Amino acid sequence: MLFSGYYVPTLKEDPAEAEVISHKLLLRAGMIRKLTSGMYTYLPLGLRAVNKVAKIVREEMDRAGALEVLMPMVQPADLWQETGRWEFYGKELLRFKDRHGRDYCLGPTHEEVVTDLIRGEVRSYKQLPLNLYQIQTKFRDEIRPRFGLMRGREFVMKDGYSFDANEDGANQSYARMYEAYVAIFSRIGLEFRPVEADTGSIGGSYSHEFMVLADTGEDTIAVCTQCDYAANLEKAEVTCVAGDACSACSQDMVEVATPGKHAVDEVAAFLGVDPQRILKTLLYDIDGESVAVLVRGDREVNECKLKTLLGGDVCQMASAKQVEEWTQAPVGFAGPVGLKVDKIYADFEVRTATDWIAGANKKDTHVMHVDIARDVKLTGYADLRQITDQDVCPRCGAPITLPKGIEVGHVFKLGTKYSESMNACYLDENGKEKPMIMGCYGIGVSRVVAAAIEQNHDEHGMMFPPSIAPFEVSLLALTGAKDDDLRAKAVELHDVLENMGVEVLLDDRKERPGIKFKDADLMGAPMQLVLGKKGLTNGIIEAKNRKTGEKMELPLEGFQQGFEAWRKEVYASWGLEVA
Amino acid sequence: MLFSGYYVPTLKEDPAEAEVISHKLLLRAGMIRKLTSGMYTYLPLGLRAVNKVAKIVREEMDRAGALEVLMPMVQPADLWQETGRWEFYGKELLRFKDRHGRDYCLGPTHEEVVTDLIRGEVRSYKQLPLNLYQIQTKFRDEIRPRFGLMRGREFVMKDGYSFDANEDGANQSYARMYEAYVAIFSRIGLEFRPVEADTGSIGGSYSHEFMVLADTGEDTIAVCTQCDYAANLEKAEVTCVAGDACSACSQDMVEVATPGKHAVDEVAAFLGVDPQRILKTLLYDIDGESVAVLVRGDREVNECKLKTLLGGDVCQMASAKQVEEWTQAPVGFAGPVGLKVDKIYADFEVRTATDWIAGANKKDTHVMHVDIARDVKLTGYADLRQITDQDVCPRCGAPITLPKGIEVGHVFKLGTKYSESMNACYLDENGKEKPMIMGCYGIGVSRVVAAAIEQNHDEHGMMFPPSIAPFEVSLLALTGAKDDDLRAKAVELHDVLENMGVEVLLDDRKERPGIKFKDADLMGAPMQLVLGKKGLTNGIIEAKNRKTGEKMELPLEGFQQGFEAWRKEVYASWGLEVA
Repeated sequence: MLFSGYYVPTLKEDPAEAEVISHKLLLRAGMIRKLTSGMYTYLPLGLRAVNKVAKIVREEMDRAGALEVLMPMVQPADLWQETGRWEFYGKELLRFKDRHGRDYCLGPTHEEVVTDLIRGEVRSYKQLPLNLYQIQTKFRDEIRPRFGLMRGREFVMKDGYSFDANEDGANQSYARMYEAYVAIFSRIGLEFRPVEADTGSIGGSYSHEFMVLADTGEDTIAVCTQCDYAANLEKAEVTCVAGDACSACSQDMVEVATPGKHAVDEVAAFLGVDPQRILKTLLYDIDGESVAVLVRGDREVNECKLKTLLGGDVCQMASAKQVEEWTQAPVGFAGPVGLKVDKIYADFEVRTATDWIAGANKKDTHVMHVDIARDVKLTGYADLRQITDQDVCPRCGAPITLPKGIEVGHVFKLGTKYSESMNACYLDENGKEKPMIMGCYGIGVSRVVAAAIEQNHDEHGMMFPPSIAPFEVSLLALTGAKDDDLRAKAVELHDVLENMGVEVLLDDRKERPGIKFKDADLMGAPMQLVLGKKGLTNGIIEAKNRKTGEKMELPLEGFQQGFEAWRKEVYASWGLEVA
Repeated sequence: MLFSGYYVPTLKEDPAEAEVISHKLLLRAGMIRKLTSGMYTYLPLGLRAVNKVAKIVREEMDRAGALEVLMPMVQPADLWQETGRWEFYGKELLRFKDRHGRDYCLGPTHEEVVTDLIRGEVRSYKQLPLNLYQIQTKFRDEIRPRFGLMRGREFVMKDGYSFDANEDGANQSYARMYEAYVAIFSRIGLEFRPVEADTGSIGGSYSHEFMVLADTGEDTIAVCTQCDYAANLEKAEVTCVAGDACSACSQDMVEVATPGKHAVDEVAAFLGVDPQRILKTLLYDIDGESVAVLVRGDREVNECKLKTLLGGDVCQMASAKQVEEWTQAPVGFAGPVGLKVDKIYADFEVRTATDWIAGANKKDTHVMHVDIARDVKLTGYADLRQITDQDVCPRCGAPITLPKGIEVGHVFKLGTKYSESMNACYLDENGKEKPMIMGCYGIGVSRVVAAAIEQNHDEHGMMFPPSIAPFEVSLLALTGAKDDDLRAKAVELHDVLENMGVEVLLDDRKERPGIKFKDADLMGAPMQLVLGKKGLTNGIIEAKNRKTGEKMELPLEGFQQGFEAWRKEVYASWGLEVA
């Protein structure tokens, strides 16, 4: 492709609207343009990257036996009413009426539609398993769309759904998709981790997120430094390391005045103790029940674990009014002793000590020498806190790190959540009707492009892995006003590369070399070839690996062979092989 | 692909919901399923056909220098308000509000969005011409969706937009797209005609529709039997063949009682004259003006021509109330003599006679011996009637035929309609600001699949051209319960074909031969290969051209060569060449 006949409106300045690096670089490189909040047009270069991701996804889905379909993007409300999600899903689900006043929504996900399709078709276990997927533009009406392609309202997604007759089959389908996802992100050449994750509003029994590691990621994940264990922060299990042997507290409880000291750090400083000695008491309203959770003063409660423990639908912090009602005291002095709530849970770690300082449920007052076993009506202990980087791996005990990540894929074992509510049943070998066991599997196709950039860039621009680069090669012809020979040679090399099946963008613009270098670095093709006047005279072309910055010279004589060898090296620097 | 691992839920019975043959066959062959009114899921086989059309479209667009982009499907109202189409477009434009109460619509077409994109980017004539296209799911809230993929609400469309600095350039862009469309439909192997067409609600200066010829088409087109002339019925020009020399009417007008006779045929029968002698008077409200149109009794007024003549926005038949007000008589007795309307136009043909019978603008009364020149205050003559199959070609005078067609593509010269209203300007060579000249170009990608079926089917099922068939070859293994040899041979042939790059569906199901034959005919792969027990023994496989029904035997020894030769023949029967 010749730059002069292409449409790549690069920008010299950083666009004001951009909040993250991928957003900024995608705009600057002329890959996307904003239409309105959270909605972008993919310009030719941007669409090429998205399509390359889609192609890899498609190939691996097909290889794994999934079948491609295309479902409508507009969905009738009645299906969402069957599963209850019409009410439950929240405002991200964009609802509207058609000309006849019937209710519809724009599909953010297709569990209802695909279940409706299958329940009308599949009658017998002989027709199972079935695994359907689609690659489609989705819409989610995010309250605050931001970060360009990272959290837009409209985005390209691969969503897939499996239907099985039994648990074994469903687990196999899940494993096959998990493996396909590993293959996809490996082929793309990204550093990623599959992590154990919560099932959230999709529901189901278990799930994994696929996280691209990047310092700018919105999510934090817990990754073992030794074994394969990885989980998102919501899900990461905490192993309680046994402390010193824990004898009963020898001292009686005693109240202490803590005027105006609410926060753990304030109280600790005021009393001259370590915050670890404070018992933090948090109050929640979980489906109408009042629940107190106790964690060590320097820890955070993991609400996701709490919700899972109690099996609740809606879990929210108690309001100031509820706190005052339940504790009979102003906010900031809640404590477990004599607390009138439905349930009191403590994190496992709290078991390792017996001499706590806690709120006294009384204004400006705390109580010292609290012994949970002696002084608190505890409902039970559980793993209820957020993991930290001082914790150890729950599998192997090695240290844990907490890198940042960007979620690009998610696989769910749904179980029978949708098949039961929508009556998607089959007849088993004995003619007995049973609900199908489902899984669902998503990849944010357009988000992968943004995540690849967040992970791979420098101060000059993007560094695309060769697998999804809009063009594998940027060929720069450093032509003056009348360098007809140089131009002709550049076009010849361009044609040679295209005939080799290499996607090349020849910068044949009448621009200064500096601008061409800058734009090539910005656009981030993994291979740069620079043909200048001197090189042409000496029969060489300069080659630069955009990722490593390594430069070398390739002889124009026998160019093809030299290029092939270098191409392999560039791919290898990404951990990839030339297809 | 093995049938047993694929998902093709064929139906034995005709589905009740299907109204046209393509709809029926697409459902029966397990290619699509209805979600709700006008919205379909493409099952794997259906999606393959759609994707094949899309691939051909994409290749020809790229070859013609158009650049692929992807614009959002959701569009903000403010852009549509700029062009005035937010009000004008009607209820097909599905409008809704997002969670913040802002107005949006689902994109039925993208003139506004693409013009907004370009006006923000292109400043100079040096950046022009530019031709962008996308392949995308569109939504039009049809009042009565019907005919399956022929007139759905959600459909896959290619839409493209060109921007030029001058008329010459714009005409070249138009011509290049026209040629690309000819190439696309030729490559698909359909019988089609590009026809001159009206520009309708898109607007602009001229346009062509691409019509696939099919007896079941919704549209009628006028096609010359000799030259290249073709136009849709709205647009087809009528050449007025001069009648006998036309002297003034020798008789004075005289009223005649026609009690209860309104329709032309009633009046003609009652008076014992030919309907051709009656002057039909039709009344219209065109942007608030009262307009009468006179045509010969056996002709139909072409409202599109009328609208074009008067340059009106809204052209509608006068209401009963208006007719009574304007004619001072009940409906059915309107005539041009003494008629109090703003304008009276007559079709050219009316000029060829001088002794007319017309309504008298009086209850139960007509008037005879009307001479237009003598008795009517005519505004003017114009080509205002619908063409008929007794008319001749306006270009060469040869007979015209009126075949049925299905619109699958439409190219428009838009001119500056959108660039002016949205201020999409560029600076010309002299630094002067000018609006860009635009064109727009659509292809109904999913509709092409339906049109191909409407044109090519028989009582047994579909006949797909090899270019867009979901699979080129249906390979039928007529296995019994334990024909392991036959099954193995069939799989071997399947693999041979796949390695040749031929897409093959091997029917390896445990079904009776009759069912396999029926399903293969229904699904319409252009090539059928049947491997039976006897054939295997004799070393031959039966080959059937689905289109012509021709059968032959291919030796299993040297199968590849024999197949290649036969494949060429099958392609040739479609007027196609193997790629």
